[in-house]
Amino acid sequence: MAKKKHIKPRASKKGLPPGSAIYIGEDRTHTTSIERISYNSSEIINEQNFKLSDLNQLDGSMVHWLNINGIHENDVVESIGNYFNIHSLTIEDIMNTFQRPKSDEFEHYIFFTLRMLVITKDGIDINIDDEQISFILTENVVISFQEKPGDVFDTVRDRLQDQTKRIRSKGADYLAFSLIDLIIDSYLEHIEYFNKETEEIENKILDTPKQIHLNAIQDIKYELITLRKHIVPTREAVARLLRSESNLIKRDNIKYFNDLQDHMYQVVDQLDILRDLNANQREMYLSMISLKMNKVMEFLTILSSIFIPLTFIVGVYGMNFVNMPELTSKWGYPITWGVMLLITVLNILWFKKKNWL
Amino acid sequence: MAKKKHIKPRASKKGLPPGSAIYIGEDRTHTTSIERISYNSSEIINEQNFKLSDLNQLDGSMVHWLNINGIHENDVVESIGNYFNIHSLTIEDIMNTFQRPKSDEFEHYIFFTLRMLVITKDGIDINIDDEQISFILTENVVISFQEKPGDVFDTVRDRLQDQTKRIRSKGADYLAFSLIDLIIDSYLEHIEYFNKETEEIENKILDTPKQIHLNAIQDIKYELITLRKHIVPTREAVARLLRSESNLIKRDNIKYFNDLQDHMYQVVDQLDILRDLNANQREMYLSMISLKMNKVMEFLTILSSIFIPLTFIVGVYGMNFVNMPELTSKWGYPITWGVMLLITVLNILWFKKKNWL
Amino acid sequence: MAKKKHIKPRASKKGLPPGSAIYIGEDRTHTTSIERISYNSSEIINEQNFKLSDLNQLDGSMVHWLNINGIHENDVVESIGNYFNIHSLTIEDIMNTFQRPKSDEFEHYIFFTLRMLVITKDGIDINIDDEQISFILTENVVISFQEKPGDVFDTVRDRLQDQTKRIRSKGADYLAFSLIDLIIDSYLEHIEYFNKETEEIENKILDTPKQIHLNAIQDIKYELITLRKHIVPTREAVARLLRSESNLIKRDNIKYFNDLQDHMYQVVDQLDILRDLNANQREMYLSMISLKMNKVMEFLTILSSIFIPLTFIVGVYGMNFVNMPELTSKWGYPITWGVMLLITVLNILWFKKKNWL
Amino acid sequence: MAKKKHIKPRASKKGLPPGSAIYIGEDRTHTTSIERISYNSSEIINEQNFKLSDLNQLDGSMVHWLNINGIHENDVVESIGNYFNIHSLTIEDIMNTFQRPKSDEFEHYIFFTLRMLVITKDGIDINIDDEQISFILTENVVISFQEKPGDVFDTVRDRLQDQTKRIRSKGADYLAFSLIDLIIDSYLEHIEYFNKETEEIENKILDTPKQIHLNAIQDIKYELITLRKHIVPTREAVARLLRSESNLIKRDNIKYFNDLQDHMYQVVDQLDILRDLNANQREMYLSMISLKMNKVMEFLTILSSIFIPLTFIVGVYGMNFVNMPELTSKWGYPITWGVMLLITVLNILWFKKKNWL
Amino acid sequence: MAKKKHIKPRASKKGLPPGSAIYIGEDRTHTTSIERISYNSSEIINEQNFKLSDLNQLDGSMVHWLNINGIHENDVVESIGNYFNIHSLTIEDIMNTFQRPKSDEFEHYIFFTLRMLVITKDGIDINIDDEQISFILTENVVISFQEKPGDVFDTVRDRLQDQTKRIRSKGADYLAFSLIDLIIDSYLEHIEYFNKETEEIENKILDTPKQIHLNAIQDIKYELITLRKHIVPTREAVARLLRSESNLIKRDNIKYFNDLQDHMYQVVDQLDILRDLNANQREMYLSMISLKMNKVMEFLTILSSIFIPLTFIVGVYGMNFVNMPELTSKWGYPITWGVMLLITVLNILWFKKKNWL
Repeated sequence: MAKKKHIKPRASKKGLPPGSAIYIGEDRTHTTSIERISYNSSEIINEQNFKLSDLNQLDGSMVHWLNINGIHENDVVESIGNYFNIHSLTIEDIMNTFQRPKSDEFEHYIFFTLRMLVITKDGIDINIDDEQISFILTENVVISFQEKPGDVFDTVRDRLQDQTKRIRSKGADYLAFSLIDLIIDSYLEHIEYFNKETEEIENKILDTPKQIHLNAIQDIKYELITLRKHIVPTREAVARLLRSESNLIKRDNIKYFNDLQDHMYQVVDQLDILRDLNANQREMYLSMISLKMNKVMEFLTILSSIFIPLTFIVGVYGMNFVNMPELTSKWGYPITWGVMLLITVLNILWFKKKNWL
Repeated sequence: MAKKKHIKPRASKKGLPPGSAIYIGEDRTHTTSIERISYNSSEIINEQNFKLSDLNQLDGSMVHWLNINGIHENDVVESIGNYFNIHSLTIEDIMNTFQRPKSDEFEHYIFFTLRMLVITKDGIDINIDDEQISFILTENVVISFQEKPGDVFDTVRDRLQDQTKRIRSKGADYLAFSLIDLIIDSYLEHIEYFNKETEEIENKILDTPKQIHLNAIQDIKYELITLRKHIVPTREAVARLLRSESNLIKRDNIKYFNDLQDHMYQVVDQLDILRDLNANQREMYLSMISLKMNKVMEFLTILSSIFIPLTFIVGVYGMNFVNMPELTSKWGYPITWGVMLLITVLNILWFKKKNWL
Repeated sequence: MAKKKHIKPRASKKGLPPGSAIYIGEDRTHTTSIERISYNSSEIINEQNFKLSDLNQLDGSMVHWLNINGIHENDVVESIGNYFNIHSLTIEDIMNTFQRPKSDEFEHYIFFTLRMLVITKDGIDINIDDEQISFILTENVVISFQEKPGDVFDTVRDRLQDQTKRIRSKGADYLAFSLIDLIIDSYLEHIEYFNKETEEIENKILDTPKQIHLNAIQDIKYELITLRKHIVPTREAVARLLRSESNLIKRDNIKYFNDLQDHMYQVVDQLDILRDLNANQREMYLSMISLKMNKVMEFLTILSSIFIPLTFIVGVYGMNFVNMPELTSKWGYPITWGVMLLITVLNILWFKKKNWL
Repeated sequence: MAKKKHIKPRASKKGLPPGSAIYIGEDRTHTTSIERISYNSSEIINEQNFKLSDLNQLDGSMVHWLNINGIHENDVVESIGNYFNIHSLTIEDIMNTFQRPKSDEFEHYIFFTLRMLVITKDGIDINIDDEQISFILTENVVISFQEKPGDVFDTVRDRLQDQTKRIRSKGADYLAFSLIDLIIDSYLEHIEYFNKETEEIENKILDTPKQIHLNAIQDIKYELITLRKHIVPTREAVARLLRSESNLIKRDNIKYFNDLQDHMYQVVDQLDILRDLNANQREMYLSMISLKMNKVMEFLTILSSIFIPLTFIVGVYGMNFVNMPELTSKWGYPITWGVMLLITVLNILWFKKKNWL
Repeated sequence: MAKKKHIKPRASKKGLPPGSAIYIGEDRTHTTSIERISYNSSEIINEQNFKLSDLNQLDGSMVHWLNINGIHENDVVESIGNYFNIHSLTIEDIMNTFQRPKSDEFEHYIFFTLRMLVITKDGIDINIDDEQISFILTENVVISFQEKPGDVFDTVRDRLQDQTKRIRSKGADYLAFSLIDLIIDSYLEHIEYFNKETEEIENKILDTPKQIHLNAIQDIKYELITLRKHIVPTREAVARLLRSESNLIKRDNIKYFNDLQDHMYQVVDQLDILRDLNANQREMYLSMISLKMNKVMEFLTILSSIFIPLTFIVGVYGMNFVNMPELTSKWGYPITWGVMLLITVLNILWFKKKNWL
């Protein structure tokens, strides 16, 4: 069984004033890059290396998506924060990569942070890699922050290129929804993955239950605990978004966020079913082991019951008393065999009657 | 134990824009057919192959039921959606056959989707087949979407033919209620079925508990998990319908939807009792196995306890020491037998006292 | 263990239009009889065979109690329904004897349905017989519907005869309360009964745990599940009555219905404690069995440990090697005995130290 | 394990009209006595045998505390009820000593009833004796009803004598609070007591787990169930008092009742922790027993494994075949010993490697 | 396993009037000292031994932090209480060191009390030391009460010295938030500590499960119960603070208290995961022990099954019948060996087939 960190530390922040713009997470050395896509229904601009100094040239009539790859450079995040007038606590939440998924509503922007989960399998060890992705939604800008390059957003990028797609005629709120939706959709994939693993183990246990299967069940249990830790607060965050009365989310698009919530409920439903199946499997494993043990003991008992009396009998006639009339009798030996056979047959009949055979 | 998919994938949708009218489900090749029944208190029109081009000829003074058999042809569903001005997310929900049961209220229509469950038994394998059925209720039209032909609606069809039935004098909301009620009623049948299965297993276990019974208990447990997955969100959907303030459901008929909710509570109550019984059965099975094991071990212990000392004694007089006075004594052999009998009797008395016999 | 129906079917209703006045339940052949008691503070009229045709002669200044024995005759129930203008869904609820306990409030009447439970004991099999009792409360009439003659209402009948009792000066709402209160009071009796059974089993288990005790525990568990199924929805129904704003229940008498709710809470409290005790008993049984098993195994182990080495030793000197100096030694035999005694003593001391003896 | 009544009967009330002033409880023969303390900030009057006929002479400018010892004399309770215009249901609640703790608010008085618990230990049997104490709070009178003389109120009596204490300058509501607070404080003592018992058992189990410890754990579990039965409804009653809008509790003193609720939460918190510890202890006991069993079985297995092959070998050379060359060989005997030693050594090494030794 | 007090007594308070300023806790003999830090954005005053007589000289334009080290001297706490007009119940809560964490809002001040936890490890015994810390927040003063010198507030002290820090420009509410935040942050450290312990035990169990590991799991379980007892009410207290409408917390700073709540949710989340892991570990331990036991029994069974028949055979030819033709046959001995070998081989093959080897 692999040894994993189920709970990540946050202690390194201790002692810092709240709202400190200090990156807390694994060491990152890559340079932060900013991708920018600006569009309206007629025009689209793609830029791979957007410079922060161009922030004030963003056209108010277009929707802008700024995708920040890397959040370990304080000055980048802080510059953006200053330009868009972001609260220092939001900045802290973005940079503290152990943040619980949540949504926060401010007067002029909405903040949403959740986890992108990547499952990797190394031999029989399953690993969930999680990366924090934060979103800031303002009137016409969506800013996404991710810890490192590489994401699940390619389908949105593709749709944005196509002028006929609905996304091109909708505002920043719809863009934010599309991005969050992709991440939540990926949760369903993960659940499906664990479901497949669970089914495979079940089939193997029904053949021959082995210690490694118990470990695999345990492993999946741990991963499901981890998944749940990320997913349940995400559901709450989506629900909070829906209850919000911010006019950054247009009345028209509220249906889409409703849809997000539906998906989150489906994710949690299925996660709970998986946990049920997993717990069940463990019980099944243990009862199969116990049944096997029972059979082993029954076998030993039956064998012993048959031979113990016989061994006693042959012991009797192995005694060296001078005065043992049976020993000198001509029929002593065959009669002894006969008696022993009779005892054996009666024994077996008795076991049959007792339903032990 | 049969191997089933407890959680169905939805991953194939991943990457599609939300609200895409794309069928997600098993391959379906049959042609979509549309059944139409229009009625008012005096007149009724049945049409097996209604054409979408006739949609605009539907008479505003009648109630119309359009029953769509097959939802895998995008253009059919989309045409209907366009004609009735259905939101693209609703279209997506109709065509994604892994949709969680839910109800959704729009300005000019109410959307309701749930599962029709069909239980089939193949040898000892129980299978729950589930098909998604969606309803759209507008002012005077009910549209039902099902994945394939064949449904549980025949009793409604029959009632509609009879001019004296209440349904003929009620509006589209009462028709929608009648259709949903039939499906929910069928859940009670399923629960009754599992109840009968559970009782049968119980009786068998009380006779002789066998491994296959444990598997059957396990199987039913899985099916109950699946049932619950479909039924609990349905209850929520009905509750949401009741809280709705849409005037598509007339004040007069709200009592009927209240009745639907009562039925859902009864379904969930009984499902929970079944789950309790199922869990109980498993425990009973395991404790019966454990009791049997105890008896086996007790038997072995008693037998061993009686023969082990005797075997020792006969071993002693099987030794070949030259100087063993007992061996040459005339009464040595009978006395030995006497001692052994005495030990046996004392042993048995002791076991009796200890309550092991 | 008795085989019981824990979940009763309702399938026979399937396919009927909602609100059908069709009796669903066990076959009943007795004739429906109607008992009528009319009273005010000064006068009381008892009639055993009230005729429905006299309904319109009921005096508006008196309180009338119509007690319907038998609900399997559709026309009787329907006539009453028509006269008092009862909703068809209420009629259905009255006649469907598998109805979940509930209360329903209409403009001109309140509907309340619950279960009267009768416990019978056949040998060691405990049986809960349940009969549905429904009440309709209008301005000055209480109608009670029961499946068959015989009920728990005699104390109310007696009190009604006595002009000095409070019930004579109160209205129909107080009469309804008194009747429901009697049924709920009888629940406490049932719980007390199961409590006594539970205590008896506990005492027996502490003496000698036997398989039949486990079955009895199981049986009580099933009965408690059944009780709970009836009682929890009854509590909800009472709570709903209290939240109602119908003026059929006078402000003055609301305290009495409050009292009903207190009783329901007490019933559910005690039921939950009983379930706790029952679950506990099962665990106790299993741990006592397991302790007994442990003792059996310890005994076997100690006995084996003592005799196995001794048997080996006597086996050694039973060998027939020609060259075994011990055999011919004069002290061989007594020394062997000495060694065997020594081993036995050491063994016993060791077990004592290990706390196994 | 002691046999106790976990659920007390209430059946004796069955059939009585609701609100009947009839004492339901254990037989009480002592005479009801009434203690009266009247005070204001300057004056205090103590009277041990207050007469009901003096009720109308109670001075409106003082706070009066009437402590009724004994509630089995109907006329005493009824006279008080009549004088203070108490609702008949309240009278019933006072006299039915199996009443669930609750608070009830009427226009001109507040009713509060709870349990005073007294723990007695008879040998190893712990017993919770519970007595019902009810309070009625009117504008300037507090009436307390207890089943028998002797209570926990002495500290309040003492404080009342001291003119400098805050209680002397506060009204009847503060007096009621002080009395209830004393009872709730005594709950904490009981919990502490069970905590001490639990710790003692834990220490004993860690030494040598015995059957009587399991019984003691079971006993405490039952007592905790009983405690919880009384305490949880008390918490609800206090909460209800706080939500009340009666002006019998002055705005100024609401903080004190808030404090009561804090105490109740603390009591329930600690009770739940105790239940946790108790359940834990049971599991610990069972796993220690199971570990001991494992060791016993391992010991038996190792001993058997060593001697079974040796016994076989000596058996071989105990055979009486004429043609057994080993027997006549000079080195046969010592070689056999050598082989047996070798087998033993290898066996032990193998066990060591397997980590069984 | 260490013996700890899981529930601390509060009985010593019993009988005291509510709101008594009497210290309840461990014996403390050190002198109470008062530290005072006063600051505004331009100036800061530190004083180690502030005198209560100087209270009235506190400048209204500065923020004052009074840190009281020691709460066992009644007069100190009471003087402060009098000066700031603190309710006597608050005084009681400060001095009763077994107070449940809570927040209380008064007209002119807010009261907050929680626990500072210090984990010490003595050999393998883990100990949680908890000290009560209370805060009083008024318009421009924060008073913190701690049982003894030494706290976690040093980082706040440092930040206060630095004129450029945000804390210097914020009011008393922000100071209170900063202090509480530090304590809550320290909870995450404790959870991380237990997480590390849990991981270490897991690794050890996977190697060789031993009794001491079960004790360690048990120990951690107890500590987690203790942690939860302190942390859950703290979460409630923070939530209550957020719902408060006191204007002592400025609208501007409410976001920071929101952040506190986020942290509390994270703490409780992780605590619950730890409890899950801990429970899991126990189950894993027990199933590994059970698997080991199974292997031991299988080994014994196989060994016995092989040797029991062989021992019987050699017993047969150890019998002393005169008429045993096999004994005198030349091939008797080798054939016997052959038969025994054959039986052994068949036995082993059969076990292989049965999957026991």
